[in-house]
Amino acid sequence: MFHRLTALVLAAGLALPHAALADEAAEAAIGARKAQFQLFAFNLGVLGRMAQGRMPYDAEAAQTAADHLYHLTRQFNPALWPEGSDNASMEDTDALPVIWDDLEEFAGRYEDLQAQAETMQEAAGTDLAALQGAIGGLGGACSACHDDFRAE
Amino acid sequence: MFHRLTALVLAAGLALPHAALADEAAEAAIGARKAQFQLFAFNLGVLGRMAQGRMPYDAEAAQTAADHLYHLTRQFNPALWPEGSDNASMEDTDALPVIWDDLEEFAGRYEDLQAQAETMQEAAGTDLAALQGAIGGLGGACSACHDDFRAE
Repeated sequence: MFHRLTALVLAAGLALPHAALADEAAEAAIGARKAQFQLFAFNLGVLGRMAQGRMPYDAEAAQTAADHLYHLTRQFNPALWPEGSDNASMEDTDALPVIWDDLEEFAGRYEDLQAQAETMQEAAGTDLAALQGAIGGLGGACSACHDDFRAE
Repeated sequence: MFHRLTALVLAAGLALPHAALADEAAEAAIGARKAQFQLFAFNLGVLGRMAQGRMPYDAEAAQTAADHLYHLTRQFNPALWPEGSDNASMEDTDALPVIWDDLEEFAGRYEDLQAQAETMQEAAGTDLAALQGAIGGLGGACSACHDDFRAE
């Protein structure tokens, strides 16, 4: 039972010099946060298409997407944002160095996303109007962070 | 505030013939569930390396990883597993068609993962021995599903 986990762990952390290890840790964190954003987008896509009338409203599917988004946003995980994982230090990320000038402020922005995701969770399964009423705030929480902390 | 979400939604669903749309939906679901597994692995990696003594035990980092894993596993999202997203129908997935023979059984396996993630959340921040006591069950829940439902 344990060997698969062992293999996974070994694959994630081969013995390397210190700098290479730091880069590898930053790469893993970048990959993980991109995965997190991809899951946000997957669920936002369902809610957004319904809100825009490009997909028929389906209360169960809307609630499932909103529930997933709710759970995905419960925690701000600082391990996904290590020092040195900005777009001036690493490739394959749009995260601006300014994030690390005040990581607490950055984490605070996440609190708005958490609140908006909770609002959406309460609304999504009710009806289309309720979903539409919650989507702007949710999109706004995304944009508020992207505008300041993500490269164009 | 809304335009970014709109762009994201549009990018995720261009007008396509029906079969192509179904394939595109399956691709998006495969991408999303891989993202989910990547986030599992990211956090399991931290816990596994500590359990194996390949990373010093750090109660806060262990708890953060266990919390993330806990939240990530709260929901079995069927939207990540649409019909036709098996490895006989699509590329870039190891999901065996047998999953869809009994999706309820498959979802049931997820319940063991949920229980083991909860056990780990309660243990990880206590001390190394508690973390080590919980890691086997967690790895076992991963393997139990992989053994039956994932291609070699």
